[in-house]
Amino acid sequence: MFNEYLTHIPFYEELTQPQKDLLAQNLAEQKLSAGQIVSSDSTSCKGFVLVMEGQLSVSMISQDGREAELFTLTKKEMCIFSASCLFLPSTFHVQITALTDSRILVIPSPIIAKLRENNIHVELFAYKTMTARFANVMAATEEILFVPVEKRLAKYLAAAQSPIKITQEELARKLGTAREVISRLLSSLRREGIIKTQRGEIRVLDAKKLELKM
Amino acid sequence: MFNEYLTHIPFYEELTQPQKDLLAQNLAEQKLSAGQIVSSDSTSCKGFVLVMEGQLSVSMISQDGREAELFTLTKKEMCIFSASCLFLPSTFHVQITALTDSRILVIPSPIIAKLRENNIHVELFAYKTMTARFANVMAATEEILFVPVEKRLAKYLAAAQSPIKITQEELARKLGTAREVISRLLSSLRREGIIKTQRGEIRVLDAKKLELKM
Repeated sequence: MFNEYLTHIPFYEELTQPQKDLLAQNLAEQKLSAGQIVSSDSTSCKGFVLVMEGQLSVSMISQDGREAELFTLTKKEMCIFSASCLFLPSTFHVQITALTDSRILVIPSPIIAKLRENNIHVELFAYKTMTARFANVMAATEEILFVPVEKRLAKYLAAAQSPIKITQEELARKLGTAREVISRLLSSLRREGIIKTQRGEIRVLDAKKLELKM
Repeated sequence: MFNEYLTHIPFYEELTQPQKDLLAQNLAEQKLSAGQIVSSDSTSCKGFVLVMEGQLSVSMISQDGREAELFTLTKKEMCIFSASCLFLPSTFHVQITALTDSRILVIPSPIIAKLRENNIHVELFAYKTMTARFANVMAATEEILFVPVEKRLAKYLAAAQSPIKITQEELARKLGTAREVISRLLSSLRREGIIKTQRGEIRVLDAKKLELKM
């Protein structure tokens, strides 16, 4: 019944016939509501997740529940971090959440463990995919570390629909900086007549001048 | 001549005899002075590097030359990021630098490419090692994102030798935050009588109270 999706499993063609059968017999379908947690520290052994419909978010979660999104996954994409118990040291914590109502296909962790034991391609797939995802996340981190926040703020304001309904606190979180920094930068843009601010709202007055800040 | 080091190559036992010979014939030794760049964007195809003596630093580098260290490597450890051309998308930039005078053994990239083509264990080793390194780096990033800078500052001040010779700018860089934030936090610690500051210097006056901030 999931035949059309089996071909989207990247290592499917590398499996032996018995392994293909094992996989097909153990696939589980699951419906998710928007906001539902698919996998977290306490349930991080779910397995590989293939998105059939909808969108998932993969994020880091702090002990007090704060969240930083790493990337999102859409239809036909596969999430391996939901089987991180098998491949990652325990020092790194991810949570996977449904962003919209979604339908997923799960290859349970015990099945992956079995396939992996007898098929190095499954193992290679997992590590290769994790490397690619991490490299993307690190490239984004590189931007936070190295692109001056002035430029990132200008880019953000230029790309958004004016008037922009956002607080300084939210803006700071989105740009990975402190509220004080945002406050200083907005004051400076205001003094130059580039923006106008009022409680929870920013209006771009001079898009041309703003562009020069990017 | 490098026989004692061959066994430190993690995938050595997985190689066929002809592959072992190919490897042994193409290993190159290199001496590095402290500060010397081993591999960067322009030379990122060097190959795998095994540290024989000394210490290497792996860092991200911005276009204008700023640097964020990801991790360091010491004796008998192998660096795979120096062959990132073979395994990573070009979006992620690392530089490898000798921290001290060092001696390294290099498996040149064309040899790795050849081994990888015929031996999936070499490929698996590379991706597996990268996944582990990235996971460690992400765990460190998690701390920057999630442990309040107040706590990280208190920890830093408590661990350092008082008086601490450091500018607010340097402190901000070390703790991955903005100078304004450091300035506000130091003022607050000063008001509480926990520290005393003067140009480029911080003195801890009340170590007990400082500990409560950690």
